[in-house]
Formats: sequence, C-alpha cells, structure tokens
Amino acid sequence: MAENTHNFYMPKTNLVGVGAIKDLPDEIKHLKLKKVLIVTDKNIISLGYVEMVERVLKSLFISYDIFDGVIHSNPTVSFVEDGLKYFPNKLNVLARDYDYLISIGGGTNHDCAKAIATVATNGGSITDYEGWKKITKPMIPVICINTTSGSGAEVTMFAVITDNSRKVKMLMGSPNMMPIMSVNDPMFMASMPKELTAGVGFDVITQAIESFLCTEASPITDGLALHALKIAIEYLPRAYENGNDLEAREKMMFASMMAGMTLNNAGLGYVHSMAHQLGGFYNEYHGNYDAILLPFVLEYNAVSIPDERMIKIAEAMHIKADKKSQALDKIIASLLKMRYDFKMPDGLSEMGIQEKDIQQMSQNALKDLTALVNPRQGTVEDIIDLFKAAM
Amino acid sequence: MAENTHNFYMPKTNLVGVGAIKDLPDEIKHLKLKKVLIVTDKNIISLGYVEMVERVLKSLFISYDIFDGVIHSNPTVSFVEDGLKYFPNKLNVLARDYDYLISIGGGTNHDCAKAIATVATNGGSITDYEGWKKITKPMIPVICINTTSGSGAEVTMFAVITDNSRKVKMLMGSPNMMPIMSVNDPMFMASMPKELTAGVGFDVITQAIESFLCTEASPITDGLALHALKIAIEYLPRAYENGNDLEAREKMMFASMMAGMTLNNAGLGYVHSMAHQLGGFYNEYHGNYDAILLPFVLEYNAVSIPDERMIKIAEAMHIKADKKSQALDKIIASLLKMRYDFKMPDGLSEMGIQEKDIQQMSQNALKDLTALVNPRQGTVEDIIDLFKAAM
Repeated sequence: MAENTHNFYMPKTNLVGVGAIKDLPDEIKHLKLKKVLIVTDKNIISLGYVEMVERVLKSLFISYDIFDGVIHSNPTVSFVEDGLKYFPNKLNVLARDYDYLISIGGGTNHDCAKAIATVATNGGSITDYEGWKKITKPMIPVICINTTSGSGAEVTMFAVITDNSRKVKMLMGSPNMMPIMSVNDPMFMASMPKELTAGVGFDVITQAIESFLCTEASPITDGLALHALKIAIEYLPRAYENGNDLEAREKMMFASMMAGMTLNNAGLGYVHSMAHQLGGFYNEYHGNYDAILLPFVLEYNAVSIPDERMIKIAEAMHIKADKKSQALDKIIASLLKMRYDFKMPDGLSEMGIQEKDIQQMSQNALKDLTALVNPRQGTVEDIIDLFKAAM
Repeated sequence: MAENTHNFYMPKTNLVGVGAIKDLPDEIKHLKLKKVLIVTDKNIISLGYVEMVERVLKSLFISYDIFDGVIHSNPTVSFVEDGLKYFPNKLNVLARDYDYLISIGGGTNHDCAKAIATVATNGGSITDYEGWKKITKPMIPVICINTTSGSGAEVTMFAVITDNSRKVKMLMGSPNMMPIMSVNDPMFMASMPKELTAGVGFDVITQAIESFLCTEASPITDGLALHALKIAIEYLPRAYENGNDLEAREKMMFASMMAGMTLNNAGLGYVHSMAHQLGGFYNEYHGNYDAILLPFVLEYNAVSIPDERMIKIAEAMHIKADKKSQALDKIIASLLKMRYDFKMPDGLSEMGIQEKDIQQMSQNALKDLTALVNPRQGTVEDIIDLFKAAM
C-alpha cells in the first residue's frame, strides 16, 4: 500500500455550547498568562463581548491591551501591520510584548490575530508566508473566541489576508499557525443579522461539500463533513428565520466547527479558490460568493467525483437519488432554492463584479492553495468559463 | 435555553496514515526536546518499533532512556511506580528529569505513560487521582505512538490503572492528562494477532455505540461515532481474516481514532463500567468483555434510548429497521454473529469469571466514571442481574 498520510490538527481545547464561556477562567488559569493582546473590532466591543472577556482576565490578574483595528469582512495586510505596532520588542524572546493573543469576533478577527501572532515570532512581513508551511516557528499562542458560525477559523491553521497592492487574498497555512484554544458559545452569536447568518451558513454548507469531495478527504473528515452538512441543511433555515432560536444557533455553531475541522485537515476546492479572489478584488461577504459559485463548480467537478460520494452528499441533504446525475441535479436545485429563500444575490454581476477582472482573478485562483485539492484539475480557461457562467 | 456545554479536547497534532511516522522528526524538532523517556514493553521492542523511534531521536540529537516495564494488557499501579523511579528529582521543576514522554504500544502503554507523566508533575501517588478532574497541573507532555487500533487512548485524556490491592480498575480523566501528539501508522499495526484484532475491533464498535447513546453526546461526537461504527462493521472482518490487508488495517485505525475522539468528549456507559471491573478482578483482553456485555446492556438501556437514535445505529451497521424494537433485535443478532465469526468467548463463565465476585464488581461498576453518562441510571441489583445474565 502506498504511503498516504492524513494528519489531523486541532486546537487541544475547545469550549463549546451555551454557557461555554464560563469555563474560560478554569482553562486559562494554568497557562500562567502575564500579558494578553485582545484582537477585535469596534462592533464586537459595542456588543459587550469584549467586556465579558476583560472581566475574566481581571479576575485572574492578567494584564491586557486591546487592538480594535480590524474593520471589515476581509482582513488586510494593513490591519496586520497596525496590530504589529503593539510589538515594539519585535523578535526579542526575552522581552516578549505579549505571551498570548485572544481574538474575539468572526473569521476576519481570528485570521488577523493569527497573522499578527505569526509575524511576531517569525519576523518579516505577513506577505512572506503565503502558501503551505512557509511559517517555520510556532506563532504566539492564540485563543479564538468566536462570534459567528461560518468561517471555522477558530479551529484552523489557515489565514486569509488580503494584499491590496496586488488585489490578492493570500491564503497561508501551517501547523505553526494553529490556535491553542477555541471558544464557541452560541450566546455570542445571537446578534448576527439575517444577511450574515445566511452568508456564513452557506459557507458552512460549501465547506462541508468541498472538503468531502476534495482529494485529501479521510474517513475522519468524511464523518465530520457529512454530519455538518446534515445539520446545516436542517437548522440554517431556522437560524435565518429567527436569530434568537438558540437551539438552531447552537446546531449551526456545531456544524461550523465541524466544517472547520474538516477543511483544516482535508482542504477545499475551486469554489474557495475563486471566492478568495473575488474577496481580494471586491469586498463582499465571502458566503455570498460561495452561494453563487457552488452549483457551477459542482457541475464542473462532477465528472471526477465517484458516484457513491455524490449520492452521499445528496443523502446528507435529505435528497433521495440512485444515480449520480440525478443526485447532482437535485443537489443543485436544493441549493438554488435555499439561496432564493435567503434572498441572496443570484449572480456575480449583481454583486458588482466586472468582466475585466476575470482574467486576473482566474490566474490567481489556480495559484490558491485550495485549488490543489480540487477533485478535477483545470486550466485558466476552465476557471474563466466558471466565472463567466456565474456572472 | 439552559446552559449545556460540550467541550471538545484533542491532541493538537495527530500523524495519521500509512507512512505517518516519517513526519515525526518534522513535528518534534521545534519542541526543543532535550531528554525523553520512552515508555513501552519488551514485545514492542522485539518488533523493532522502538528502534524506529530511537533513530528519529538520534537524528535530532535528543537523548533518551527506555522504560520497558509495562507487561500485560491491564496497567497496574506497580508499573506506574516502576516508571516513576526514572524521576529521582521528583517535583523539582528546575531539574526536571525528562521534558517529554513518548509511549509506544497500545492503550496499556499509553495509559501507563500518562499516569507516570501525571504523578511526575502533580506528586503523590496515582491512586490520588481516580475520578474526573482531580489532576490540577498539566502532566509532562506525552506523545503516543500507537500500535493497536482499539483503545483510542492515544487521543484521550483518560487512563485506566488497576489497583491490585483493591482489585479496582481506576478510571481517571482530566484535560491536564491529554497527550500532546498522537501517531497512528497502520504499518505499526500489521503484526497484531487475530485474537487481538477481534478484541480491539469489538472495543471500537462498543465505544462508538456507547458514546453515541450516552447522555453527553454532541453533534460532533455523533458524526464521528456513526462514521466509526460504519467503517468498523465494514472493515473489521477483513482485518480479522487477513492481518496484512493494510487497507483494512488503515480503516480500522481511523475507526479507532474516531471512536477515541468520541468517547473522550462524550463518554461511554455500563458496558465499560462493568468491563473495567472484570479487568480489575481478572486479566483478559478488555474487548472480549465488551463483546459479551454489549448485547445485554443495549437491551437494558433500550427503554431510555430515543427510537431515532437506535435506528441510526442500525443504519450505520447497514441494517434496515423502521422501529426501535426491530432495530434492537437486528443489532443484537448482528453483534452475536460477529462474535461467533471471530471465535470470541460466549459468556463470562467461559472466561473464568466467578459468581462470588459479582456483588463487589457491581458495586464498583456504579462508581466508575463511565456509569454516570449511561442513558439509563440503574441500581446495584440491575448491574448484578446484567453480570449474571452474561455468565
């Protein structure tokens, strides 16, 4: 049997469920923290979530500073550089500025915190670390307290940082960029607006489907991906209809966390390779791009997907199908109906994407890490066609 | 919604798959190890597995000693005490004897290593830590290199240590006893004899079923448990028939790891509460006890199991059933057939268990940590009846 490894990385400690935040003091008191940098944004502060964490730190006599300079839904190199201003001692390990980072927010804030923590120990600029395993030293430990249920970033060793100068959403990944702890408490998620709930929810569905179909899937990620998909199909409509439905919020949080565990250890595919570029050129919710691209990429990939795996996706979506073609048709119909019900955009042109950018985005998409594990390997022309079809 | 947490613990790094051992040097070189204690047994040494790890340590100029005093399939207090003789500096953190432990073997060796590493930082005796969260300080970091696919101990924060003076298999658990890294390479598992393959395989099946049905199950553990069960039902017969079937070995390794992740974060039930006591009084393969007890405990628990969950277990076992009673009957029939095919013992008396010990074992079983999350809470008389039925 040929060598074939499926290493599995995960934060050691994950506090999960309604009230999970209460376990935080108990979990961090033995870490012997002296000085913590909180990475967050002004919206999260105004919602009172940061104050809850501040109270925990104060009760343990841990000093902290707050960097609230993360602004919108796609973290940029400049946010990371602003955060690094909190590290005047740079690489001096004997005079380390902070011994832990705590990010509070969604994927944007977590990715930003991971990037800051990485440059703080590895030096240089975050643009040096684009790609897989370019980060050679462990970052400063990061604890991610999550307030959305979509990115999975709180349990992944990846970060997506936009380099505005090149209009590229750089994807970087390394076991050295793995958060040490995640906190997923649905009480922090109830305030997500409808549009964000739909966007991050569709991201969960896309992550589960892409990572189940990608070339690095393993039995562990299969089990997690199919169950995440099943839960998201059942509970996303409820979480969308009523944001205060804490049961639905909790289930979506589980689905998101499982999809995060899955994509972290299997990978994704062309939907994400392309959506990352759209995020680099424009600046909309990532989940909306997913929702538009997924049906086209599924159809494009179908020829390389074993019948049995397509049928398993249908099953997880409560769709009955005996043949691959039938499964594919019904899956796409179901995704389109959901997109319609959630009032999400129908095409890329509606979101302001312009034809002139497609060539460049397509070239960049094929260089994105997620493209390497897509079940069907295509050409730039293939990607251009997919972008055009999705306009 | 009431508070309800489902914290999820896992080693941060898990090397998995055929050839995974080759990633070990890359993963440990940044740990800055100076001195490692290897915990293993003479059989594992004779199979050449320890030498493979020694080569890695030598290549990185890491010094090490070997404690090969683990003898049989149930680790005892005396093995732990023998291992602790390697720690003459005791709790002196400035003169720590070893900065990492590497256990090589099955669950027995991993549990023994976790216990040694725990007492080395927490002091006292391992008997002080029976129960949940009695361990207040993190153990010395432990890396578990696994050579069976059954216990899941390489990814759990639990250890089972037999106190011969009381004939009790003490179960202890704490996030402070979580291994930092696991290695699961099927090449280390090909030499398992038929009897062990059947025993540890039945343990995987029992772990998956019990943790899916226990009161602390969460969507994450559900996804893992059902998929682990599905794989074990499909591949255990192949691994049993031909130990060199590396594909079947690999699938069983995944199933075992997933069942370990599940039981670690959800729990187990009366099969394990009772099997632990049998292990304390007698000294047979744990999996044989599981195989005998599981049908009786399933039938006993049935009244407290939601219809839908029983039917999901049947589905994972490729059994068609519409009603709970039908699912239960078919599940039990299928388990009995497997036990027969694997030439496993049919009853406890056949294994030498004596009626006179049942009273004491039943009392101890109810105190076992795993009993707390069994779906039906019973009396000592209930457990006595279950033991007698299984004779």
